[in-house]
Amino acid sequence: MLKDEIERRTTEGRAFMRFMRAEPLQSDEPYQTDQEQKLPQPPLVKARMRPEEAPIALPQDFTGLAQGLDLTQIIRRRKSSRVYTQQGMTLQQLSYLLWATQGVRGVRGKSYATLRTVPSGGARHPFETYLLVQQVDGLVPGAYHYLPMEHQLEFLGPVEDLRANITASLAQQSWAAKADVVFYWSCVPYRAEWRYGIMAHRIVMVDAGHMGQNLYMACAGLGLGTCGIGAFDDDLCGELFGLDDADEFIVYTAPVGTISDKNAAEEAAFYTFVEEDGL
Amino acid sequence: MLKDEIERRTTEGRAFMRFMRAEPLQSDEPYQTDQEQKLPQPPLVKARMRPEEAPIALPQDFTGLAQGLDLTQIIRRRKSSRVYTQQGMTLQQLSYLLWATQGVRGVRGKSYATLRTVPSGGARHPFETYLLVQQVDGLVPGAYHYLPMEHQLEFLGPVEDLRANITASLAQQSWAAKADVVFYWSCVPYRAEWRYGIMAHRIVMVDAGHMGQNLYMACAGLGLGTCGIGAFDDDLCGELFGLDDADEFIVYTAPVGTISDKNAAEEAAFYTFVEEDGL
Repeated sequence: MLKDEIERRTTEGRAFMRFMRAEPLQSDEPYQTDQEQKLPQPPLVKARMRPEEAPIALPQDFTGLAQGLDLTQIIRRRKSSRVYTQQGMTLQQLSYLLWATQGVRGVRGKSYATLRTVPSGGARHPFETYLLVQQVDGLVPGAYHYLPMEHQLEFLGPVEDLRANITASLAQQSWAAKADVVFYWSCVPYRAEWRYGIMAHRIVMVDAGHMGQNLYMACAGLGLGTCGIGAFDDDLCGELFGLDDADEFIVYTAPVGTISDKNAAEEAAFYTFVEEDGL
Repeated sequence: MLKDEIERRTTEGRAFMRFMRAEPLQSDEPYQTDQEQKLPQPPLVKARMRPEEAPIALPQDFTGLAQGLDLTQIIRRRKSSRVYTQQGMTLQQLSYLLWATQGVRGVRGKSYATLRTVPSGGARHPFETYLLVQQVDGLVPGAYHYLPMEHQLEFLGPVEDLRANITASLAQQSWAAKADVVFYWSCVPYRAEWRYGIMAHRIVMVDAGHMGQNLYMACAGLGLGTCGIGAFDDDLCGELFGLDDADEFIVYTAPVGTISDKNAAEEAAFYTFVEEDGL
């Protein structure tokens, strides 16, 4: 029966959120994570996907960006924006967003951990950043992969029917197709599982939120708009960036675009159901 | 066998992270969430736990806090701090941290959603904030519950062996016991399940990260230190604040304290294993 299935899966979902999963280990053997077993750790970042082509340097000078606002003002400005004016972004702005969400500040040990602009459980940083670029100065439209160690982008290739693919990949949320760029963050789960074993997955999802919040904050600072999206077409997202879908898959997405106060009515239209349903 | 069990649970954990859970619904009946079925929605916030006592007003004037740093500087300063100087915090600082992480900016519709200082999927904001206070000007040490609608605190009572309980509740991480205040965020899962059904739980964990990141950013702005903790004693955390453990349970925690550059060596000591293990 559907009712029983939903109840069972709700119980499972709630158990997943707990630090100590509801179901204790059945085995009596002592459990050690791969790190505790001194197994070799996986690479800190994904290797270049197009090593034969020169990567694209990103501006590292953020002078003039996100000026004149203090933290309180940025927190007050932070909101979800779904209506974009399609004016296009600068490469410096995109560089700032990539830095703010996944930028590397240093490496701990020989190659134990990256220290980044966002926190991650055990500094595992189990994410890769992919972009679908529509309108960014100096970038050909198409698919990109961020190289956090070098703060560079590699071009993965053009994408046919780019706008249609953005909409389809984001579970038919067509407003996203007016974004200048869409962030797709994948997870490489073993980076976290190596340290945290079967406890890794809930931590990774929290880390995705740390990263997403910095995108919101950086957009608020730059006067850009974004809206985190948790509903997407897993298969299509994976295909767009050539992910294997088992050891790497998309976990969070966010379109970013230019915005205008003139579109307040259009933004409000996303919430007409509230009044219609008398909520 | 342990190996098989770990493999199964790793597969389950990875499936949980996906938007479309690996396991499709077995039932052929059409699945609608409670919101789609027009079932009444749960309250936006938890009712006061001590309605018989006057709540404690929190300063709403943040003048002088988090000044003189732009967003880029705050992102550069943001780090995890585990060594606290125990100088104590002001009530204004604590008020700022509560506002930055869960402050309410408005209500959508009659009572459809709270709009807060952090984003949450569908604006469900399925969290409650609890504190163990040790050293905050004007507050008696003990347990508190945040009332986000009123931006007030309610005192739940003193806690015996406060320091020992902090350490025990945070899975024996004794460094946390020098914090001036420890944040414990609970989740009330049905607030999100009402809208997202069996897809709610992964979204809630991402939302916990949004909130946690704003605590990090606010601490960086105020010159305070924090370190998000994903490992805790579920049962003890629930007991400390009288949670029912089924419909409300702790999902994320974070000690906050005053810090000093003089403690850099003590901070570094948390990572001696990196060199010892040749990582």
